[in-house]
Amino acid sequence: MASRSDLIAPRSPRGFADRGAAELKAVREMAEAIRATYELWGFEGLETPVFEYTDALGKFLPDQDRPNAGVFSLQDDDQQWMSLRYDLTAPLARFVAENFQRLPKPYRSYRFGPVFRNEKPGPGRFRQFLQFDADIVGAPNVTADAEMCMMMADTLEAVGVKRGDYVIKVNNRKILDGVMEAIGLGGEENAGRRLTVLRAIDKLDRLGPDGVRALLGAGRKDESGDFTKGAGLDEAAASRVLSILEAKRGSNEETAAALAEAFAETATGREGAEELATIAKLVDAAGYSGRVSVDPAVVRGLEYYTGPVYEAELTFTVHDDEDRPIQFGSVGGGGRYDGLVGRFMAENVPATGFSIGVSRLLAALSALKGEEETRADGPVVVLVMDRDRIGDSMAQAKRLRDAGITAEVYLGGSGMKAQMKYADRRRSPCVVIQGSDEREKGEVTLKDLVAGAAAAKAIADRAEWTESRPAQVTVAEDRLVEEVKAILARQA
Amino acid sequence: MASRSDLIAPRSPRGFADRGAAELKAVREMAEAIRATYELWGFEGLETPVFEYTDALGKFLPDQDRPNAGVFSLQDDDQQWMSLRYDLTAPLARFVAENFQRLPKPYRSYRFGPVFRNEKPGPGRFRQFLQFDADIVGAPNVTADAEMCMMMADTLEAVGVKRGDYVIKVNNRKILDGVMEAIGLGGEENAGRRLTVLRAIDKLDRLGPDGVRALLGAGRKDESGDFTKGAGLDEAAASRVLSILEAKRGSNEETAAALAEAFAETATGREGAEELATIAKLVDAAGYSGRVSVDPAVVRGLEYYTGPVYEAELTFTVHDDEDRPIQFGSVGGGGRYDGLVGRFMAENVPATGFSIGVSRLLAALSALKGEEETRADGPVVVLVMDRDRIGDSMAQAKRLRDAGITAEVYLGGSGMKAQMKYADRRRSPCVVIQGSDEREKGEVTLKDLVAGAAAAKAIADRAEWTESRPAQVTVAEDRLVEEVKAILARQA
Repeated sequence: MASRSDLIAPRSPRGFADRGAAELKAVREMAEAIRATYELWGFEGLETPVFEYTDALGKFLPDQDRPNAGVFSLQDDDQQWMSLRYDLTAPLARFVAENFQRLPKPYRSYRFGPVFRNEKPGPGRFRQFLQFDADIVGAPNVTADAEMCMMMADTLEAVGVKRGDYVIKVNNRKILDGVMEAIGLGGEENAGRRLTVLRAIDKLDRLGPDGVRALLGAGRKDESGDFTKGAGLDEAAASRVLSILEAKRGSNEETAAALAEAFAETATGREGAEELATIAKLVDAAGYSGRVSVDPAVVRGLEYYTGPVYEAELTFTVHDDEDRPIQFGSVGGGGRYDGLVGRFMAENVPATGFSIGVSRLLAALSALKGEEETRADGPVVVLVMDRDRIGDSMAQAKRLRDAGITAEVYLGGSGMKAQMKYADRRRSPCVVIQGSDEREKGEVTLKDLVAGAAAAKAIADRAEWTESRPAQVTVAEDRLVEEVKAILARQA
Repeated sequence: MASRSDLIAPRSPRGFADRGAAELKAVREMAEAIRATYELWGFEGLETPVFEYTDALGKFLPDQDRPNAGVFSLQDDDQQWMSLRYDLTAPLARFVAENFQRLPKPYRSYRFGPVFRNEKPGPGRFRQFLQFDADIVGAPNVTADAEMCMMMADTLEAVGVKRGDYVIKVNNRKILDGVMEAIGLGGEENAGRRLTVLRAIDKLDRLGPDGVRALLGAGRKDESGDFTKGAGLDEAAASRVLSILEAKRGSNEETAAALAEAFAETATGREGAEELATIAKLVDAAGYSGRVSVDPAVVRGLEYYTGPVYEAELTFTVHDDEDRPIQFGSVGGGGRYDGLVGRFMAENVPATGFSIGVSRLLAALSALKGEEETRADGPVVVLVMDRDRIGDSMAQAKRLRDAGITAEVYLGGSGMKAQMKYADRRRSPCVVIQGSDEREKGEVTLKDLVAGAAAAKAIADRAEWTESRPAQVTVAEDRLVEEVKAILARQA
């Protein structure tokens, strides 16, 4: 124990959070449902370490404006730079290149774990968070992209999102790439402007069409007065880009046809529309129409996508405490990134995959379910009336555990009242009490805390007192397990 | 795709490893068994972030000789130093101090996750590995330590170690502390020498009594010629320390009595022996004698333990490929650390807990089970005979998945032979084939790959060829699910 002046302030680093039992349970259940779905589709697990060499990781974070920021890096004792992974895609590309010969191809992989962003933390914005990814490497055809979209739909339903409460939107980068070629933004020298166009469109939800138009042109001043430089397109070029967003029709087939009609001027655009038509056909044939929707407004902010891009969006609305509507929007997405593995090997290795933001999806589902009732899902607590006989309490707890009942002995030094309070805090369904009288008679007393709380409430409501001891029974010691089971069964 | 000269070498940082599907499954199953046991005993989950502020983490790594090494650290953009956690105990101490008021006390917590050591990697020695800890905070009495020992025993049995194949050894630091007081090693000024004594004894298994004696005295030269400075005890003092190791008797009660007799010269030693007697009594009364064994040779290398220390040791021997015996020894351990939370708060917060080395335990269990047979636990693979009809294949896979059968469509561009090879690599139990003939007749062909492999082996053995197609059936398409189920049932 330190003296007062030596004390260290106990706190987590900024942007990092502890997670308690209830959240861990919810995450575990969700992760199991996602994993079961991915495995049902033939995906197999992989886990890479949290560190990668910085050069292997590359820099593919959405925010281009902070080139050297965004990741946590440190220098190893052999002077090589290592970084904590900021997503689960870059490490997969490294793994595939490293193990290319021995992997089955196509290689279906899933990965689950924490990723790290060295960014300014804020409310709901953490520097360590969980992602759950699935990817197919080595399948060049958009059949794989169609599969990813359908699996995303299955995954959302597996974790409890109802059909109709979500949509998987799919688009193809080649449509936009074709338009950019046509308006003179092709070539390596325009890569920066193309990325500005991409990110402008990606902000459609937040800024609306006028905001996007400003960012496509000279630029935009936000409410705080900060100016963001635009892509510098003229009016006609900006309109041509924005016209992509207007191609959405009632059905997948119609949307794909509308895109083919409007954007066939370049080979790239034509190819993009054809690929979307193929996806539409496969998705509709497999019975996923409506759940997977061709939507030209989806672009995804990442630079490395080369073909189809897709996004899982929750469409339901919940209301907060003050009855304001809340929409959760995107809970995951991805696309085809045919160039990423190619950073490591000369061979062309096509790949497509998506990432689910676990915390975001969990928050949405919790909001959907509403406030959970406080349940008595804690352990049965065996109270200790006589510390010299604590071995008896331990034996009672052991009998309960041997019967599969979660049970613990109170190990603190306090009296009866504090022990009851402890049981309450632990959300215990029932406590076991054996004083000296009971021990002599070979009996134990069981107190049903759920029924007890209900009775206490009823008494308070009626503003009267009763000498009866509600929810409490004294039984023969050898019937301990059966009687506790009976109480738990009544509560269930 | 990069040009050849730009290619980045794909490799993981030194000492960090990828983990594939089979290992992930084994870890997951083991972790679930451990978690279920901890929860049955009333422990609740907690997860802390991988980063802690460096000052909050403290320096409690076993190897004192590298004071500033051992952890991965970096400076945050507000200049504060953060480190990756090197165990799951120091973050718990920070968490408890930070949330002291709202936690139930005693607080039973478990934690599972990766920890990081910035050490020289070697064979089987990684810089990121998994620990699964359990601790009780706020229980001053050794009843809690007895509980930890018994829970460790239950945990090992839950993951598949048979009774008799392990022992939980328990000792008390106070015995050794008493002896050190008696030989003049008390007081703050001798902390360094005490630690040297501790670590010398901790090396008993590896160095034997003579090696330990050398380290207690002037020092020891190892086989490579490197000299390790000793604690500088004279012959009599070293013998007194070593006499602790000789107090082991046939039963827990006898060992505790022998310790009480031999080491009651100081109040500290007496207290240690009395506490061990209490633990022995509780353990024996609960039916854990033999499984939990009082053993004066256990000290644990960590500086911060203040009372009982305990260690889970596997006692079985397996043989490697060349029939050499392998013992796994310790797979986890812990002890009482009453001072650790006190670094953060003036209040005295007693605590006791242990850590299980998940990878080490897993390696031991795998060795015990022996080579696992190659099972066909992969997905059913729906082959693609006609790429224009891939929608049909996807529909077939969907029907299988809807019935809970893991299934995937072959998404590569290769022909029949490569597809069969792919199915084999995926450890597929069976493939679904539908050529144009079969489609016209409304049929599918199912090939049982397990029976097929057996038949192929039989044919090779008999060195003859048969025109019959073993393990292959053609059935009506609408019976797809039933027939696949029948094949899987035959294989099970």
